[in-house]
Amino acid sequence: MTGHPKPAVCVLGTGLIGGSVLRAAAGAGYRAWGYNRSEIGAKAARADGYDVISDSEEVLRRAAERDALIVIGVPMPALGTILSDIRSFAPDCQLTDVVSVKAPVAELVHRHELGKHFVGGHPMAGTSESGWAASTPDLFSGAAWALSVDEGVRAEPWTRVARLALDCGAVVVPVLNAEHDRAVARISHLPHVLAEALAVEGAAGGNLALGLAAGSFRDGTRVAATAPDLVRAICEPNAAALLEVLEDTLRVLGEARDSLRANGTIADLVEAGHAARVDYDDNQRWAITGIRPGDHDWLAQLAEAGRRGGVVKSLD
Amino acid sequence: MTGHPKPAVCVLGTGLIGGSVLRAAAGAGYRAWGYNRSEIGAKAARADGYDVISDSEEVLRRAAERDALIVIGVPMPALGTILSDIRSFAPDCQLTDVVSVKAPVAELVHRHELGKHFVGGHPMAGTSESGWAASTPDLFSGAAWALSVDEGVRAEPWTRVARLALDCGAVVVPVLNAEHDRAVARISHLPHVLAEALAVEGAAGGNLALGLAAGSFRDGTRVAATAPDLVRAICEPNAAALLEVLEDTLRVLGEARDSLRANGTIADLVEAGHAARVDYDDNQRWAITGIRPGDHDWLAQLAEAGRRGGVVKSLD
Repeated sequence: MTGHPKPAVCVLGTGLIGGSVLRAAAGAGYRAWGYNRSEIGAKAARADGYDVISDSEEVLRRAAERDALIVIGVPMPALGTILSDIRSFAPDCQLTDVVSVKAPVAELVHRHELGKHFVGGHPMAGTSESGWAASTPDLFSGAAWALSVDEGVRAEPWTRVARLALDCGAVVVPVLNAEHDRAVARISHLPHVLAEALAVEGAAGGNLALGLAAGSFRDGTRVAATAPDLVRAICEPNAAALLEVLEDTLRVLGEARDSLRANGTIADLVEAGHAARVDYDDNQRWAITGIRPGDHDWLAQLAEAGRRGGVVKSLD
Repeated sequence: MTGHPKPAVCVLGTGLIGGSVLRAAAGAGYRAWGYNRSEIGAKAARADGYDVISDSEEVLRRAAERDALIVIGVPMPALGTILSDIRSFAPDCQLTDVVSVKAPVAELVHRHELGKHFVGGHPMAGTSESGWAASTPDLFSGAAWALSVDEGVRAEPWTRVARLALDCGAVVVPVLNAEHDRAVARISHLPHVLAEALAVEGAAGGNLALGLAAGSFRDGTRVAATAPDLVRAICEPNAAALLEVLEDTLRVLGEARDSLRANGTIADLVEAGHAARVDYDDNQRWAITGIRPGDHDWLAQLAEAGRRGGVVKSLD
């Protein structure tokens, strides 16, 4: 229908992440358009030359006509409404999302009977800013883009979403929803919680403490500058996994406190933290090869490879 | 004796901070030389054209001859030894330090009967690297440089150290030792502790979690890359203040955990953390004027101004 070499992409919610997907996809040659609930945001995108309107019905009808891949970029609290719209106007489109937490999104998608063409996704990129104004086409350059390989995921939409992620400059991390959610509780949601706590403790020291604060405080509190509603929308749907890691953090910090009080040292924590940071610095993404979407047992094989740090770097 | 417009500066310990003081002072026109315990470090500094040797006696005899301002840049555990050397070879030199924690340093200086010419200092700058190789002449550019205004501090050394700090590109924050130590527990030592804990929790998620980690984890764990011995040398001498703030952090995180478990929300923490980070971003350093070192009640007046966020930007 288009003569375009790449399929159409329809982005719902053109904030930081969705907006960046729209920019990156358009830059990579996709026919791409979008919807944004706020007309102000949609107008800002149009002013930058992108086809974004605030009428979800029209946007979704076009997606249905052109067999577009739909990318859901709305925050978690707005997900139910947008899924109802998709169910009404574009129920047969292939579907992915870029919302943080994966199991609750998948559950809601299935509840709207949209699971058949759905592959959950999560590009691991962001800034403390939000909205269209903060979006950039290169936000995903070199980033990890988690993609669900849960039971029931089909090869065709998986390949299509993976190709979009690669075209946006990312590498694809195949992962089960539940494992993704436990992992991001550790490396994305806990950093937010600790940054908020650190900011609180610093400000409690008044002007003197804030005036003395340098790089360690600035970096440690950076994500506390994120809009509170957005932080809650990211962290709270992952409450169970976050609770588990928060409990463990309290244990680790409590032990450090006990050791400092009893023996004047935080050696155990500092040694372990340093070793962990070295692990992180040394962590290498290795390229998964030889597993073709649709082959026998491909989902389980990709999940296993992703668990061991493998990423999909190409689909050839 | 020198015809030099600026007094001589003798730096003891040419690691990241001391080395940067040496570079910045030399760059600002001071006659500057140094001592480093490790000959490897001293050699590296000489290779860069700086006058650094590993013979403390010779370095200190020269400081005594030339009435140099001595800047102590050794880590806390090495402080006793270097103070004994100063007591032996240059007991009448004016003296400052760039060691993190202030009350324990002052106590040790007084125990070595070197308090008369001493002004404790702490430039708030650093990186996660250490050693001469990490030092740069512009490390202190725009940084806060805390300077003790405790009872007994004399105007002449205070002015001399303040001038050095300003010449290194910093602004001077007048502060009481005890208040400094409580403040840095909040904005420097707690960030280290939380970064270590975050690194531990991230690495516990294995390759998958570390592979998904992006900006929030990278920034939140940056200072966990600091050498463990150095982190301990910075934090552990401030155990009492750190314990207090660590207790409060455990309370804050525990409340967030309770709220997440009972009500599925971390709203209170997120709102408070965001407000605190905004306070930090909005915090303005205002210039203290009209208080001359040596004037009646100058120490108390400077302490009061520093407490309210004031900084000394010039000494004219």
